[in-house]
Amino acid sequence: MSNRIKRYFLPEDQIPTQWYNIQADMVNKPLPPLNPATREPLKPEDLYPIFAKELVHQELNQTDAWIDIPEEVRELYKNYRSTPLVRAYGLEKALGTPAHIYFKNESVSPVGSHKLNSALAQAYYCKKEGITNITTETGAGQWGAALSYAAKAFGLELAVYMVKVSYEQKPYRRSIMQTFGAQVTASPSMSTKAGRKILTDHPNYQGSLGTAISEAIELATTVPNCKYTLGSVLNHVALHQTVIGLEAEKQMALAGEYPDVVVACFGGGSNFGGLCFPFMRHTIKEGRKTRYVAAEPASCPKLTRGKFLYDFGDEAGYTPLLPMFTLGHNFAPAHIHAGGLRYHGAGVIVSQLLKDGLMEAVDIDQLDSFAAGCLFAQTEGIIPAPESSHAIAATIREANRCKETGEEKVILFNLSGHGLIDMASYDKYLSGDLQNYTLSDEQIAENLKDLK
Amino acid sequence: MSNRIKRYFLPEDQIPTQWYNIQADMVNKPLPPLNPATREPLKPEDLYPIFAKELVHQELNQTDAWIDIPEEVRELYKNYRSTPLVRAYGLEKALGTPAHIYFKNESVSPVGSHKLNSALAQAYYCKKEGITNITTETGAGQWGAALSYAAKAFGLELAVYMVKVSYEQKPYRRSIMQTFGAQVTASPSMSTKAGRKILTDHPNYQGSLGTAISEAIELATTVPNCKYTLGSVLNHVALHQTVIGLEAEKQMALAGEYPDVVVACFGGGSNFGGLCFPFMRHTIKEGRKTRYVAAEPASCPKLTRGKFLYDFGDEAGYTPLLPMFTLGHNFAPAHIHAGGLRYHGAGVIVSQLLKDGLMEAVDIDQLDSFAAGCLFAQTEGIIPAPESSHAIAATIREANRCKETGEEKVILFNLSGHGLIDMASYDKYLSGDLQNYTLSDEQIAENLKDLK
Repeated sequence: MSNRIKRYFLPEDQIPTQWYNIQADMVNKPLPPLNPATREPLKPEDLYPIFAKELVHQELNQTDAWIDIPEEVRELYKNYRSTPLVRAYGLEKALGTPAHIYFKNESVSPVGSHKLNSALAQAYYCKKEGITNITTETGAGQWGAALSYAAKAFGLELAVYMVKVSYEQKPYRRSIMQTFGAQVTASPSMSTKAGRKILTDHPNYQGSLGTAISEAIELATTVPNCKYTLGSVLNHVALHQTVIGLEAEKQMALAGEYPDVVVACFGGGSNFGGLCFPFMRHTIKEGRKTRYVAAEPASCPKLTRGKFLYDFGDEAGYTPLLPMFTLGHNFAPAHIHAGGLRYHGAGVIVSQLLKDGLMEAVDIDQLDSFAAGCLFAQTEGIIPAPESSHAIAATIREANRCKETGEEKVILFNLSGHGLIDMASYDKYLSGDLQNYTLSDEQIAENLKDLK
Repeated sequence: MSNRIKRYFLPEDQIPTQWYNIQADMVNKPLPPLNPATREPLKPEDLYPIFAKELVHQELNQTDAWIDIPEEVRELYKNYRSTPLVRAYGLEKALGTPAHIYFKNESVSPVGSHKLNSALAQAYYCKKEGITNITTETGAGQWGAALSYAAKAFGLELAVYMVKVSYEQKPYRRSIMQTFGAQVTASPSMSTKAGRKILTDHPNYQGSLGTAISEAIELATTVPNCKYTLGSVLNHVALHQTVIGLEAEKQMALAGEYPDVVVACFGGGSNFGGLCFPFMRHTIKEGRKTRYVAAEPASCPKLTRGKFLYDFGDEAGYTPLLPMFTLGHNFAPAHIHAGGLRYHGAGVIVSQLLKDGLMEAVDIDQLDSFAAGCLFAQTEGIIPAPESSHAIAATIREANRCKETGEEKVILFNLSGHGLIDMASYDKYLSGDLQNYTLSDEQIAENLKDLK
């Protein structure tokens, strides 16, 4: 026992120097985003007022499989990368499974989640293009926290619009952002037209991600030298996250193994894509038989029960139309505690891959996710983020199947974040105050009926 | 820049296999603990009812410099060890100092602090001796959280008495312990004689560490197969923590450096001793000139302004008399947010070392500690625990002195924990709601007047 290796690291000179752009290798390329007024494919210039140019180019790049990671970003990756690849001996033993379970531990990032991988990249490109101020929205606060540190690291001013109900219920996340020097405003606010309008109509409105996006975009487009940034869904975000899977591939090789199944939780798709895409290139190019499993909440089942359609990325309908699996942009997910998974649509790349049968999706009930999270905590010592617990629950299903069949499969999942700032939700679970949420087919159809 | 190394790790087969017991190398051995009734030196048997026997032997062992780390403990150390040794390039740059600043990052432990190093060891020895139940007290909750996971890992039942005011104000820490499966009781409770007596006399009493210790010891001595454990102060706790310094020594060698100054915050002394003792053996045995700086809060200045006396380890006076620098066991520290440093006395070993001039101590004001913590967060990306911020503030003082003199000193400090569960205190700091606390010489003298 004493000689078995628990965690695999890469030396700093082996941290990836390029991100992997799966768009270049996809047989069926993602459909283009459309201008909602004309339904014409979007041109890069249409996005320049909102995003840094380099990020727009990455977003629409369907030809270059490898994109250099700037040296300045790599230097900051060194603060926490490589993240460990960990063999989950404790979990395996508790399950009595012959499967070999590995997880990539992104929770060791200083802000507690994988979000920093893209935050650093986005802040860098903004800085490089002479941008001085950036904006974003945040719900639960993981993305806001990561971007706050990234903005400080590159000397940018950051304004975060935080959904009001989270601003009040999750003061710790707000404090994290403020400690890094960000300006955090509860949304809706009186600082934007969009915010003022909603507050005038509904003085007690508690905010939504859609409203916060509108406020952040409005600020970005009205303040000089200011751009907007986003923490998931978009292609360039998933691109930056591929550093996860590229590291994991090298680390699996150190362990002398290759995954039969790769699992990640699914919100907008960036942590899923980040882990899976680098492995998937071997499936696309060499026919390697690996299964890719996205674990989404049963209460927000866009992959398992949504439709592939052109839809808006935000509730208010300000974004381009995106070709994606969706429950409808006005879908209001139940208030599950995995806040990062409460999103109506899937990223464009993942949607195409699911449509083409290159990946699969499972849905996880809230109570199953917390049971999985507690078992993982007790066997591996790490309290997972409620989002990551969905991946753990899906992994446990796979491992239990191996127990039945006796197969020694290699399962790799992404521990996208820790749950130390989400303990209120564990508290509720342990007190029996959490529940599952089910959706009828009629509810889903009703929400999709106006989309085409 | 791209070739400079930021973090140093050890391969798992180089994680230390022995702890270092500095008592064996000390020229002036620590004085013995005394029975308070007879003032006779304590025998091991006197402590058997309270602690596991092996821990008692480690506590009193003044002859063996090296103690084997059991394989079962090493196996669980692999979950997070080696912890990284990190070069603080970001902080150095912000200070403009020629000093080379390194920190040992114990905050990457799954429970967020160094406490796990001893929790795993204590749980292991209890298990090995056939003990089925363990107890402890916890104030802010770092120790309780670590022990909760350790107890689960070794299949022990754990009862934690958590100071009532923390139980109510820090529900997250309580939830962490419960998620790991521990039974957490607010102290004072009706479950012990000690608790019932206090609640009868003072129904609204908000609890203290002293009362919680009394309750935990009472439970340990009245329940079959149950022992008590402690997270700091005692010699065996510092012994287990030496894994920090032993790793750091190897990692500094990888960096091609050796520290001129070693800094740690100081509560009971276990994180200070854990980092410093392994380096100090070269000072004791080879005359190597290294300075060891303990950073304590100005509001609880036992090292800088206390007296070396025999005193009780707890407020109520149930423990043996210990020879230590103390402010008096009934000293009530101001309510600073570095809860782990609010203790009236220093461990026996450290007290002797300070008396002998082998180490030094500095006091840090609360506001200075938070300013240092914020600067560290913004430059290194990690929000430090308020306790660890004291070490950072002391490090910054040293680094600024190097800036004045131009000396390229190598400074190593211990980042004992992260602050992600302490954001409420950052919130107060950023809002200007925190203050410094000063103590007059008269207050200190008054508190010490009955001790001899």
